[in-house]
Amino acid sequence: MLKANIYVTLKNGVLDPQGEAVKKSLKVLDYGQVEEVRIGKFIEVWLEGDDRESALKELEEMSDKLLANPVIEDYRVEIVEVN
Amino acid sequence: MLKANIYVTLKNGVLDPQGEAVKKSLKVLDYGQVEEVRIGKFIEVWLEGDDRESALKELEEMSDKLLANPVIEDYRVEIVEVN
Repeated sequence: MLKANIYVTLKNGVLDPQGEAVKKSLKVLDYGQVEEVRIGKFIEVWLEGDDRESALKELEEMSDKLLANPVIEDYRVEIVEVN
Repeated sequence: MLKANIYVTLKNGVLDPQGEAVKKSLKVLDYGQVEEVRIGKFIEVWLEGDDRESALKELEEMSDKLLANPVIEDYRVEIVEVN
């Protein structure tokens, strides 16, 4: 069994209305020191098998096809556990 | 300037319909080795100042009040950059 973390973030320059809204709410709550907020996805995937190399390749494929939108998002795959 | 990453995940036992839907879609795409998918948030926050200690405390407060829903979600705050 393998576990992977996938971090999906908006590319630089892509507007993040959700992040903007959160920033404004934080200012209202008196956290004036907040300069910017960007909100992405943190996806945890558990996989059968224990071949890190091929798992990484497949997880990148999954990210390209389904988990991220490569036009506006970047992603990073990290294998965190091998049991 | 400080940068923090905040990972917001559903607590164990809380159903994740979005993760279930993604898992089903991955099976349809022939990734049968996927056992489970859980989807959380990856929040990046840039802050004025350079006091890691007090920043961490404030970010945990922000998470409790706004960024996460402590009833169903866990969060982890990590300071990643200090310039």
